[in-house]
Amino acid sequence: MAEKRLGRQTVCMSGKVGVLSSAAVTGGKEGEGPFGKYFDYVSEDSYFGEASWEKAETHMLKQCFELACGKAGIAPSALGYIFGGDLLNQCIASSFAMRDCKVPFFGLYGACSTMAESLSLAAMSIDGGYCDMAAAQSCSHFCSAERQFRFPLEYGGQRTPTAQWTVTGAGSLILGGSAPAPYITHVTTGRIVDAGICDANNMGATMAPAAHDTLRAHFEDTGRSPADYDVIVTGDLGAVGSEALCALFSRDGVKFGENHLDCGLLVFDRERQDVHAGGSGCGCCASLLASLLLTGMRERKWKRMLFAATGALLSTTSSQQGESIPGISHAVVFDMEG
Amino acid sequence: MAEKRLGRQTVCMSGKVGVLSSAAVTGGKEGEGPFGKYFDYVSEDSYFGEASWEKAETHMLKQCFELACGKAGIAPSALGYIFGGDLLNQCIASSFAMRDCKVPFFGLYGACSTMAESLSLAAMSIDGGYCDMAAAQSCSHFCSAERQFRFPLEYGGQRTPTAQWTVTGAGSLILGGSAPAPYITHVTTGRIVDAGICDANNMGATMAPAAHDTLRAHFEDTGRSPADYDVIVTGDLGAVGSEALCALFSRDGVKFGENHLDCGLLVFDRERQDVHAGGSGCGCCASLLASLLLTGMRERKWKRMLFAATGALLSTTSSQQGESIPGISHAVVFDMEG
Repeated sequence: MAEKRLGRQTVCMSGKVGVLSSAAVTGGKEGEGPFGKYFDYVSEDSYFGEASWEKAETHMLKQCFELACGKAGIAPSALGYIFGGDLLNQCIASSFAMRDCKVPFFGLYGACSTMAESLSLAAMSIDGGYCDMAAAQSCSHFCSAERQFRFPLEYGGQRTPTAQWTVTGAGSLILGGSAPAPYITHVTTGRIVDAGICDANNMGATMAPAAHDTLRAHFEDTGRSPADYDVIVTGDLGAVGSEALCALFSRDGVKFGENHLDCGLLVFDRERQDVHAGGSGCGCCASLLASLLLTGMRERKWKRMLFAATGALLSTTSSQQGESIPGISHAVVFDMEG
Repeated sequence: MAEKRLGRQTVCMSGKVGVLSSAAVTGGKEGEGPFGKYFDYVSEDSYFGEASWEKAETHMLKQCFELACGKAGIAPSALGYIFGGDLLNQCIASSFAMRDCKVPFFGLYGACSTMAESLSLAAMSIDGGYCDMAAAQSCSHFCSAERQFRFPLEYGGQRTPTAQWTVTGAGSLILGGSAPAPYITHVTTGRIVDAGICDANNMGATMAPAAHDTLRAHFEDTGRSPADYDVIVTGDLGAVGSEALCALFSRDGVKFGENHLDCGLLVFDRERQDVHAGGSGCGCCASLLASLLLTGMRERKWKRMLFAATGALLSTTSSQQGESIPGISHAVVFDMEG
């Protein structure tokens, strides 16, 4: 078996891959959420000064990337690679945001699992000896996502109780081989899991089986249990998906939930902000990881975190053609010890 | 500098990463092209027996992947990772084709550069010690691409002389650390290059500057010149882009063109098949690499090949909003010597 492979889905880093810096940029609604003060920049203007929401999303990601580079004290040209993606058709936010920076670019599509996918590949590219530093990033925008996946905002469509609110947010991390803690120590790469759910207004239910599959593989591959982590963070399962995930582990006879946080439940105040089942979108866990979660680790609130982003692999075409919605979840371990 | 890094964009493999098997599946028009006999399977039915063109594309890729696994004599479960992507919104062909195979999956978006992007990451994941074997694949379908990016086929839109014909085709390669030649020895990862071109019917012109940027970086990083390769293959520049690429190298004072082939010019007979500037799409270079090109290497027609796939990073939304079209090109070296 390959030297760094721990099992069917997990690999461990042989050296130290740390986090040189991180930045989070969000929209105003996210800034008003319970952890809004952790974000580096909150734009009250959902257009970010641009002429369209797609250009706004591009602007937001570019700003976030530049902030992360600035905090790391590096020029973008110091990066060996940028790994990133988003939800827009043909991932234009990520491509257009990076078109001027002249860094080798790997475009990814993992739906809302993209932040963990980009971290996985960035960590492996550093640990494998292919570069010294790499950026991992992702973003989403409520307005560009709504009109692409659902209805024009002007239509004022009703939202079902299981619906989640796409976060307007971006997160960018600069990883490095000689960067400080927290270190990425393990990467568990998800398989596509299709539980047969067809309701495009219930992303939590479609993604929970994928999160369960990946987390279960992680525990099996590493010999660890949920109790070995100070915190296990899922991407954007929201209220419905988080409950489903706990139920799936309960069915396995595994105690899960006490140290579980979900970014979809953290990002908004569901009582006050009318977001139904919670937040979602690539930018949800990306912006919280780059702010609240890494700050919590650096402050030693958590010493070991399992971060599992989750994505629903649908398009409007696949749903219109009656397809069910497969999910995928990628996980990485952040550890204050190497 | 990272141990395997040769320069700003190129890395070399420290061990041998070979090609265990490859498979190509195409539509009927491609089968009638000059090299149609090299494809493993040609479907006369553009629906591949399915109810929609998107399902057809999914079917084609799945069939191609299964053929590649079969030729390698492995079950999909033997693969450490699958890397792949396509042109459809949210890359549904790749996700849906792989939803039953239960292998850790990294979804990519590199437009028509995806085949080289997937090969790059698959080779690095093996060489880095993260897995023993990985699949790299990509696909496109003329009918699903036309209706998504341009017009419904029933509309019968006129095509401009610079337009290219999206290939209905899939290519899948199984790479392995103990697989035979040809070996992937170098990976040059592209930067996003925007030459300011806005004509969505002239992909060749948008991609040529990206191909030039990546190939130039490759030569600079490795100290090689075009003459060090038996053949330099670009993805789908077509007639316009191929001429532009040669002109760009000519401006540099670099002799380029004698050993250059372009998959967009190889796949169809432009005299006979009415495809204007040539073929295009992720599946164009994917299907030719997996058949004609690797066969040519195994038969020692070429001993060293530089394979540079090229992508145009546009969406209908970006073009409707007046954006120019950035391009990207990723390159990998196949060598019969390790």
